Amino acid sequence: MPKKRGNVTIAEIAADAGVSLATVSRVINRKDGIKGSTSSRVIASMNRLGYSLPEELKNSSSGNGLILFNIPSLNNPFYEEIIMGAKSSAARYGYHLLINKEHINRNTIQGIIDLVRRTRAAGIITANQVSTGVLQKLSRCTTVVQCCEFNQSVDLPYVTIDDASAAEDVIDYLFSAGKRRIALINGPEPYKYARCRLAGYESAFKKAGVPIDQGLMVQLPSLSYDLAVSACMQLLNSGNPPDSFFTCSDIYAAAAVRASHLSGYRVPQDIMVTGFDNVQLSAMVIPSITTVNQPKVQLGAMACELLMEKIADPESPNRKVVLKTELIIRESTLSV
Amino acid sequence: MPKKRGNVTIAEIAADAGVSLATVSRVINRKDGIKGSTSSRVIASMNRLGYSLPEELKNSSSGNGLILFNIPSLNNPFYEEIIMGAKSSAARYGYHLLINKEHINRNTIQGIIDLVRRTRAAGIITANQVSTGVLQKLSRCTTVVQCCEFNQSVDLPYVTIDDASAAEDVIDYLFSAGKRRIALINGPEPYKYARCRLAGYESAFKKAGVPIDQGLMVQLPSLSYDLAVSACMQLLNSGNPPDSFFTCSDIYAAAAVRASHLSGYRVPQDIMVTGFDNVQLSAMVIPSITTVNQPKVQLGAMACELLMEKIADPESPNRKVVLKTELIIRESTLSV
Repeated sequence: MPKKRGNVTIAEIAADAGVSLATVSRVINRKDGIKGSTSSRVIASMNRLGYSLPEELKNSSSGNGLILFNIPSLNNPFYEEIIMGAKSSAARYGYHLLINKEHINRNTIQGIIDLVRRTRAAGIITANQVSTGVLQKLSRCTTVVQCCEFNQSVDLPYVTIDDASAAEDVIDYLFSAGKRRIALINGPEPYKYARCRLAGYESAFKKAGVPIDQGLMVQLPSLSYDLAVSACMQLLNSGNPPDSFFTCSDIYAAAAVRASHLSGYRVPQDIMVTGFDNVQLSAMVIPSITTVNQPKVQLGAMACELLMEKIADPESPNRKVVLKTELIIRESTLSV
Repeated sequence: MPKKRGNVTIAEIAADAGVSLATVSRVINRKDGIKGSTSSRVIASMNRLGYSLPEELKNSSSGNGLILFNIPSLNNPFYEEIIMGAKSSAARYGYHLLINKEHINRNTIQGIIDLVRRTRAAGIITANQVSTGVLQKLSRCTTVVQCCEFNQSVDLPYVTIDDASAAEDVIDYLFSAGKRRIALINGPEPYKYARCRLAGYESAFKKAGVPIDQGLMVQLPSLSYDLAVSACMQLLNSGNPPDSFFTCSDIYAAAAVRASHLSGYRVPQDIMVTGFDNVQLSAMVIPSITTVNQPKVQLGAMACELLMEKIADPESPNRKVVLKTELIIRESTLSV
């Protein structure tokens, strides 16, 4: 009769990890003679099945028990919950997560590779938009998982959302509220999210047979509240203003609310506004903002799971996970 | 004639570092036979004087060129700019800064000490509220600088603001606007900022000879927007509501604005609201929020400077720096 801890048997772990009962037992009892990668695979299975790891096993799968989470910016509250999710997941595997704030490009890549080496990190999660050559270089030096933003040209695990379909849902919703002149306030084009949300916007218009007014499409060079206020003011004070704003960030949405206020429009009565991400700000603005919830904690946790899988078994397939979003209806689109 | 780089002479560096010209020259030319601490001191002087470090010298002052910045929470946008300041300053010294999100207490201290060792970090900046014993333990293992929050019982360098006098300024300002029933929405008591802002609040009332209504003083257990909305709603719907809110965070201020709105009060006409920190949110809320600007970038940069000083010369005095704040007047207190 195999030993049990919680509801998980050693046999189940062995089956999940594809090893013998004896191997699982040797890992649990920290006997020598087990290959590191086998041991890691067993530990990953234990975690996956909810078998609580003996204290002394945590951390054993890497020299340093450290992983890095790289974010491009500290100014986007979007990353907070993502990192919380990744951190909790890492802790379950006995790993410690440190945050690095850096753009990853040709100028910085060598520094980041050095950082991974110096800290002896077991791997890195990036939430950055990274070009193909740079990403290849990074992935040759360490285990890499992409979170939210990803570059499809390099075969690496990622977790993300379906930005295009989420954008389509918002536009459909604004159509159903009778809006037609929907301004798009989008982020910088290199980002996957910006390209996909644009695609979703366009495809919703096409599907509905509504022509797009190119003058209502704005692409901002950064996630700047002030730039977004100016851009929205300009649209609102033009001869042919929008009847609503579909913005690709809650920060832009807050800016659209401010611009409407400054221009003498009431939200939602005169102008509807929608955001994206469902960060805390979206509920704080008056009126509160209709937005797309990204499952941020789960995005972070899943990114970490994917990293653990690859660390445990570098030969495992590169899983690509797309998580569901949800439209959160709030005051900014609810005419009273 | 000493060699020059920019406007700084080697003689000036030597004088600043208290070493001979030959020593500076040996450091620059990476000759052996210079003690690590001497070399670090020279490098620190070069930085201080604006002498641009030769590439190969950057990072040479520590084995790993890494420092850690520990923050208690990712949910407070207050830390973003602080970390940006520290990160820029670290880069000038050839150090890389990684962010660790962790409470520092009896349960976590060993893990944090392990982390410093494992990453071979040269030192740590904490923005946490840390108890005496725990802080002593940490400071025995690595170079520590306290940023914003500090514990005076342990003699360590810190950089902070004068919370009490900043709070007094806000209350004086609200008095001058004719307000007397000023509710205090404060953070958790263990934090230095909460204790000092309370002290400033009380002393301003005392100075003005205005009695304090204890029923208007609220201490919340965490930096929660939702809790703050509830607390403010309760005050506003009591028999004897406040005429203004002095809140100890812009997040609380946003909550006070929301609660006023929900309770049918106009801000600022019926109720004035002030925040603290001057994070981006304070300018996004409608009406925008009068707040206390903390010099966040400078706080971070100075914390890093202090750390560099102690790394370069562990015997240097523990400097305690108090930076100036500024009252930013916005719509939430400007009756039209």
